[in-house]
Amino acid sequence: MRVRGFSFSTVEAAIKKPGRPDLAMIFSEVPADVAAVFTTNRVKAAPVLLSMERAAQGKARAVVVNSGNANACTGSQGMMDAKETARLVASAAGIPEESVLIASTGVIGRPLPMERIRAAIPGLVAGLPDGTLQDTARAIMTTDTFPKIETAQGEAGGAAYTIAGIAKGAGMIMPNMATMLSFILTDACVEPVFLRQVFRKGTDSSFNIISIDGDTSTNDTAILMANGAAGNPAIQAGTPEAERFEHLLRHVLLSLARQIVRDGEGATKFVEIRVVGARTDGDARSAAMSIANSLLVKTAFFGQDANWGRILAAVGYSGAEIDQDRVALSFDNVLMVRDGIFVGGDAEELGTEVLRKKEFSVTVDLHLGAGAATVYTSDISHDYVSINADYRT
Amino acid sequence: MRVRGFSFSTVEAAIKKPGRPDLAMIFSEVPADVAAVFTTNRVKAAPVLLSMERAAQGKARAVVVNSGNANACTGSQGMMDAKETARLVASAAGIPEESVLIASTGVIGRPLPMERIRAAIPGLVAGLPDGTLQDTARAIMTTDTFPKIETAQGEAGGAAYTIAGIAKGAGMIMPNMATMLSFILTDACVEPVFLRQVFRKGTDSSFNIISIDGDTSTNDTAILMANGAAGNPAIQAGTPEAERFEHLLRHVLLSLARQIVRDGEGATKFVEIRVVGARTDGDARSAAMSIANSLLVKTAFFGQDANWGRILAAVGYSGAEIDQDRVALSFDNVLMVRDGIFVGGDAEELGTEVLRKKEFSVTVDLHLGAGAATVYTSDISHDYVSINADYRT
Repeated sequence: MRVRGFSFSTVEAAIKKPGRPDLAMIFSEVPADVAAVFTTNRVKAAPVLLSMERAAQGKARAVVVNSGNANACTGSQGMMDAKETARLVASAAGIPEESVLIASTGVIGRPLPMERIRAAIPGLVAGLPDGTLQDTARAIMTTDTFPKIETAQGEAGGAAYTIAGIAKGAGMIMPNMATMLSFILTDACVEPVFLRQVFRKGTDSSFNIISIDGDTSTNDTAILMANGAAGNPAIQAGTPEAERFEHLLRHVLLSLARQIVRDGEGATKFVEIRVVGARTDGDARSAAMSIANSLLVKTAFFGQDANWGRILAAVGYSGAEIDQDRVALSFDNVLMVRDGIFVGGDAEELGTEVLRKKEFSVTVDLHLGAGAATVYTSDISHDYVSINADYRT
Repeated sequence: MRVRGFSFSTVEAAIKKPGRPDLAMIFSEVPADVAAVFTTNRVKAAPVLLSMERAAQGKARAVVVNSGNANACTGSQGMMDAKETARLVASAAGIPEESVLIASTGVIGRPLPMERIRAAIPGLVAGLPDGTLQDTARAIMTTDTFPKIETAQGEAGGAAYTIAGIAKGAGMIMPNMATMLSFILTDACVEPVFLRQVFRKGTDSSFNIISIDGDTSTNDTAILMANGAAGNPAIQAGTPEAERFEHLLRHVLLSLARQIVRDGEGATKFVEIRVVGARTDGDARSAAMSIANSLLVKTAFFGQDANWGRILAAVGYSGAEIDQDRVALSFDNVLMVRDGIFVGGDAEELGTEVLRKKEFSVTVDLHLGAGAATVYTSDISHDYVSINADYRT
């Protein structure tokens, strides 16, 4: 997959352990317009603080990403290390220091192994002509089991353009956001204010509607770079081209978000939670997130147990308005609950059949209004516990 | 353990399965003053709705409790069943129907097996002279592995009195509250307004500062009955006797709360989370609860991993004000983090030693003010997942 004007490189810097590429770089031949969203966690890793500042300038040439070490809770040394990494890459690539963004993911609280990173940077920059987006998607993985990529092609003013995105997720996946890194590249030329608007909207209805364990990371970063190499006239808000671009971007973002859930640590199920009939959309979202984050619900999913009672209980403490005598609940198309009580008959058997599937949906109808929301989540398995009990070792 | 004027009974009604007492009754020879707190979940089980109404009258003679079936999400049939249970007990015991409170715990969404309950009630009431508080503590258990009892003795106006409490917990333990049932009995005479006040305060600093999995049940019920059989002059607010009663009651409640955490489903660790130096007490509580509910923190506890980074991350998304460069963190007395960064040296080894213990404390000092809070929690283990994956089967 090529996106005009972008090149990629990955090297092995043995940041956590040797044996795999763990330092990656995305490079734009010309300054690209940048839109970015970062973790809402008040404890922010050094690379997040640095990239927030630099992305606010609106332009960037490169993103340097490492896996294996989050460079979080590392104090002033961490900030110096993030800056030095950017400076060394900028100097080797012959671009301004401030045009380099940084993202990190991995263990919290350990200093970056700067000696090994310094040694790896010349090779990283030298490798730019030969790298691929696929390799980059692999290099940013931590406990992910597969690289996450999505692309889309569009056309504006007679010029074809591409949107290509990569992401890593796996644990700590939760709205606003997750140790989730995502980089979206497009050769389209897009009016910058619209670009930022549409990216925020897009992440809100993709990365921010997924939840694996309810934890929010210190390092979440999603960056969109648009370098205009497609040669189209700038896409302007309010035009059919803008609508098309927004649609394609959302497709890419939602696909990446769904891949992240599918690859949740130890996940064996992919579950779409839909809440409809809520008093407001906000109520629907609270209820859906409460279900998605309930440990009791998630372990029931793992156990393939059609335990609708736990789902209603999770709605009950979500803060959403609910009249327990009006609620309906379905697993896929199997109605389990009507007017707040079990429908009886063979619903238990049919519902259990649904829960045995790898992917299914839960729909809760509160019968109170027109509010609706959808979120995606996974189950919590023994493997989740194992992975996270032993993560640092 | 005797509390004057109270008697107990338990029988086997095979509510979920045969082979153990699962229907219990607490009886007061005279109308007792009642204080009660119930789940804040908006989906409330029939027994909760019924007992809320009846406890509001201020007096009660009996509590009937069943385990194995929560009688939640059972609609109008559930309410009829709860009322019929109370009516049959009242009639057999020769007391007013409205003086009987009901509590249930177990599977959600299945009708009570009323035929078996009806058949069991005569024996339940007939057994009152012979039952014990210990048997009652056992009969209300679900996945609990041990009965939870605490007692305290006091003296007021020359009369000795007893406070005795039992509880069941295990899963779904979370402030406000948990499928947590607790019954506290005292033969002290206590002025009713003070009784209710002190019970609410006491539950707030005991059952509402524990968390096992962050889920809030549909059935949480804590009931305090004071029947005055000790013959003391009524304990009045603002007196040394009131202070002493409050202290003893809190001791009983906190002990029961700690027993519940210690018996958390699959728990292998008992952890005290203390947040100090917060801007406000509310901030401290939010931060402590966020740590206690973080799946990543809890799985690290299970893995005996001194992963302080996850703890700081949990504070970061708690909503509490934090300056990440000022935070300090200790495991027991081992300082791990100062000014937001790892202290180095042999702290990793010493911290890991602490995490290997069955019980330890985590102290986070935000260095922003005088706000403080303590909560108790457990880890999340493979067994937690197993228990909850297979709960209904």
